Amino acid sequence: MAQTDISDNIFAFVPITMQTILGTHVQGKANFMALGWLTRCNFKPPMIAIAVNKSNQSAEGILDNGEFSVNVPATDMVGITDYTGLVSAKKTDKSKLFDVFYGQLKTAPLIEECPINVECRLAEKVELLTNYLFVGEVVGVHAEDSLLTEGHPDPEKIKPFVLSMPDNRFWGLGDCVGRAWHEGKDFKK
Amino acid sequence: MAQTDISDNIFAFVPITMQTILGTHVQGKANFMALGWLTRCNFKPPMIAIAVNKSNQSAEGILDNGEFSVNVPATDMVGITDYTGLVSAKKTDKSKLFDVFYGQLKTAPLIEECPINVECRLAEKVELLTNYLFVGEVVGVHAEDSLLTEGHPDPEKIKPFVLSMPDNRFWGLGDCVGRAWHEGKDFKK
Repeated sequence: MAQTDISDNIFAFVPITMQTILGTHVQGKANFMALGWLTRCNFKPPMIAIAVNKSNQSAEGILDNGEFSVNVPATDMVGITDYTGLVSAKKTDKSKLFDVFYGQLKTAPLIEECPINVECRLAEKVELLTNYLFVGEVVGVHAEDSLLTEGHPDPEKIKPFVLSMPDNRFWGLGDCVGRAWHEGKDFKK
Repeated sequence: MAQTDISDNIFAFVPITMQTILGTHVQGKANFMALGWLTRCNFKPPMIAIAVNKSNQSAEGILDNGEFSVNVPATDMVGITDYTGLVSAKKTDKSKLFDVFYGQLKTAPLIEECPINVECRLAEKVELLTNYLFVGEVVGVHAEDSLLTEGHPDPEKIKPFVLSMPDNRFWGLGDCVGRAWHEGKDFKK
């Protein structure tokens, strides 16, 4: 390959991540925001790290209540998902956008329309320059029954979508190209 | 939707994330490990959060040197990528698996075969129960020239793949299903 140093465009690379909707309570009401920056970060107990811009009301909600939800929308929810990232709770009440339910946590609103909902209790926070990195312990998972295969959420049935930046495009999942902790076995020889 | 509480299977949900190869120096030599848990986490300066099991030699390398690389393999590298996650540097020398080059950082080995390479300097670390969450500031980005569109890495050309768990499958990117910060505009009315 002919590698080029594109470090002058430091935003050129962003890991592709799943597009989700973050649920919080802000001033006593459910609030939702498009969240594309997240990853699992601890094996046991299962924890998720999410990054939220400090100026967002969602960050305030998490700091105030110590709880949040991560909801996985299907591809047919691209429009409404994106909308939650375009308008601020400062100006727009987003509490009625979805049918909301609750699990164990009283300030982690879950979205009925989303095939997967995860409840998290704040475990750690890292204050970075423009963003908070919040680490949440997963305390509850809810899934649309028909989208499970042998009890597990099945990506082929759920049809999640991912975000690439800086081109700012959403992508569905393509073909399965292999099995993790399996495809490499041939290289062992 | 008919949501079911599947919290008894707390590992049921894992965000889908891009499959990458983590580069570190371990005991003075380049080392590589499959890394599927990462996200961007700060807007300015650009930072990436990665989660590494504490028992991995790669974690030691990052703690020792304060530097690491994130390399994005293309779909045709599924086998070798997976292999780097199957064998430990404790037993297997992985320094010769790839053609290695260096950018600014002297202990962040970059993989020539990967279309995108990112050099990171450790900025923060969070010690969780089984994993470290490392936050790295992006200090350099290298890309295969022919895979850029208007100076940006183009997912359609790069052909990255993502990991879903706990079904442990790799997926290529599917169709573009929309534009971020755009598709939601219709909902504003």
